[in-house]
Amino acid sequence: MDRHIGSQSMQFANPPTVLATASVVGPKEGEGPLARFFDVVERDAKFGCDSWEKAESEMVRRTVSMAVKKANLTMDEIQYILAGDLLNQGTGSTFGLRETKRPVFGLFGACSTFGEALTLGAALIDGGFADYTVASASSHFCTAEKTFRFPLELGTQRATTASWTVTGDGAAVLSAIGGGPYVTRVTSGRIVDMGVKDTNNMGAAMAPAAADVLTCHFKDFNLDPDYYDVIATGDLGHVGVTLLIQLMRENGYDLDGIISDCGLMIYDENNKDKKAGGSGCGCSAVTFAGYFYSWLRKKEINRLLFVPTGSLHSVVTMQQGETIPGIAHAVAIENARP
Amino acid sequence: MDRHIGSQSMQFANPPTVLATASVVGPKEGEGPLARFFDVVERDAKFGCDSWEKAESEMVRRTVSMAVKKANLTMDEIQYILAGDLLNQGTGSTFGLRETKRPVFGLFGACSTFGEALTLGAALIDGGFADYTVASASSHFCTAEKTFRFPLELGTQRATTASWTVTGDGAAVLSAIGGGPYVTRVTSGRIVDMGVKDTNNMGAAMAPAAADVLTCHFKDFNLDPDYYDVIATGDLGHVGVTLLIQLMRENGYDLDGIISDCGLMIYDENNKDKKAGGSGCGCSAVTFAGYFYSWLRKKEINRLLFVPTGSLHSVVTMQQGETIPGIAHAVAIENARP
Repeated sequence: MDRHIGSQSMQFANPPTVLATASVVGPKEGEGPLARFFDVVERDAKFGCDSWEKAESEMVRRTVSMAVKKANLTMDEIQYILAGDLLNQGTGSTFGLRETKRPVFGLFGACSTFGEALTLGAALIDGGFADYTVASASSHFCTAEKTFRFPLELGTQRATTASWTVTGDGAAVLSAIGGGPYVTRVTSGRIVDMGVKDTNNMGAAMAPAAADVLTCHFKDFNLDPDYYDVIATGDLGHVGVTLLIQLMRENGYDLDGIISDCGLMIYDENNKDKKAGGSGCGCSAVTFAGYFYSWLRKKEINRLLFVPTGSLHSVVTMQQGETIPGIAHAVAIENARP
Repeated sequence: MDRHIGSQSMQFANPPTVLATASVVGPKEGEGPLARFFDVVERDAKFGCDSWEKAESEMVRRTVSMAVKKANLTMDEIQYILAGDLLNQGTGSTFGLRETKRPVFGLFGACSTFGEALTLGAALIDGGFADYTVASASSHFCTAEKTFRFPLELGTQRATTASWTVTGDGAAVLSAIGGGPYVTRVTSGRIVDMGVKDTNNMGAAMAPAAADVLTCHFKDFNLDPDYYDVIATGDLGHVGVTLLIQLMRENGYDLDGIISDCGLMIYDENNKDKKAGGSGCGCSAVTFAGYFYSWLRKKEINRLLFVPTGSLHSVVTMQQGETIPGIAHAVAIENARP
């Protein structure tokens, strides 16, 4: 059966159900407005471990186990785990998953990883390759600062356009059978590079990729933005969302009143640390797994277009003067099958 | 339609054809016994660029373009590109693919990445989500040394159990329509960690993962090893292959005479640099895309079980005293549909 639409979209024939989610976050996320939606707010950012990296893996381990348990499944009923994070060689996820004894597809889409994981996890189910898959994406403020920026001990001052990497892992169990919410359709992102070079302004680097995938999504499925109750980008922040609205207006689409951004939701408006907002693979993952999933289940919203956004740079590419390519994946999650 | 077998295997209903492959390698690989099978042996390990990282991305760019061209397609006919490498944040692939204007799923399975890419690329086609996908995996000796080991300028002495990272990218175009060779079935790997801590002996770290996925493959499909003409692991090297044969014998399977290892094939037996053999994502990718694909097309071999192997460590995990988890993905490529 033909399930592809346009040149980069998938229409699921038997839309997989998001059977359960789990979200585990760190202390700062537990002070934000979404705190009550998270399964666990861990007060110890080290998660009882002796390094930040081990803490991130422990967070992944706990989150994925919890999601499977909340789905009333055992780990050996899961066919495939699709997971990624920001660490070099994706060790946040692989070390966190090494005891699952389940096949792991390691992914890297920077902060768009949860969108990639939901897409491939849903495709494996709708394609008939699995009954159950798990999607996971994580980030940790302290491992991310160490990987990408400065040692925490330096106390480096942050730019106002900079974002704050979320400490958190969001996981979702996808199932061939269930009553929704359903992953109904996706549009997968191309790499878009508009020449932005400032890692303190990743919103600007990612906004064009978000605009590209959204425009393609609306065209491929012949939908208007207001088909959705909410369109939620991952971590564009104030700067990026403003740019995205402008870019979409130029493309003929009005996002006003429909667009929201996980990075703008996760921290308190008065939190000075967050600067432009939250970011990291975990930002969109926990906001979906905690907040949006809960609202979908309560039918307070029925049609979500979830668009995790990523900036595909590394320390080495920045040192070599490269620009920052962006990517975004659009995943529709709805209470009714189309 | 149900396409899953056992707990971690896929049986393709309409096996995707490997329509074309391309392989681009560096100078040392061009001195090895497989040289004539590669599309391009680039004499300049910098590929005309001013850094090793840019060289790797340029290699990816050329290889993927060439594979698409050899398939008599244009880039805009490709629905999805699945690609990965060893660099931090997978920039070898993403920077190499940013001009393709096609959706990219970034993968990380260390040196097993090409197996992961073929698996997901084939599943997207057999599931009806795409007509054409491209799988790519690359590595570059100089970027890998810089990322994982020592500055090249140090001239550090190498252990006899150490391997030599292949400079090369292998890409394959998978198609819904075609006359084979077909990707017929796959078994995806679990993370297996037997406590090996020596990054100079990755063969030992990966062999248990290869044994795990092979044992599962034979059980899930009720096959014996001699069903296949060749079983080719990715980069176990001498040490790892010997271990794998032992482990499989303990599991009741005899691999003698059927097993080969891309890492043992790519360099000349008299090449002193290679030590235990070739390694890196590119090792299995170019050996498949160059050598094995050519033999499949000539029907010199008809049933290949291709098993790229990966070790999921990073510099940070090693510095923190962690063990090295291994993973391997088994992908069957055959001239006849089952």
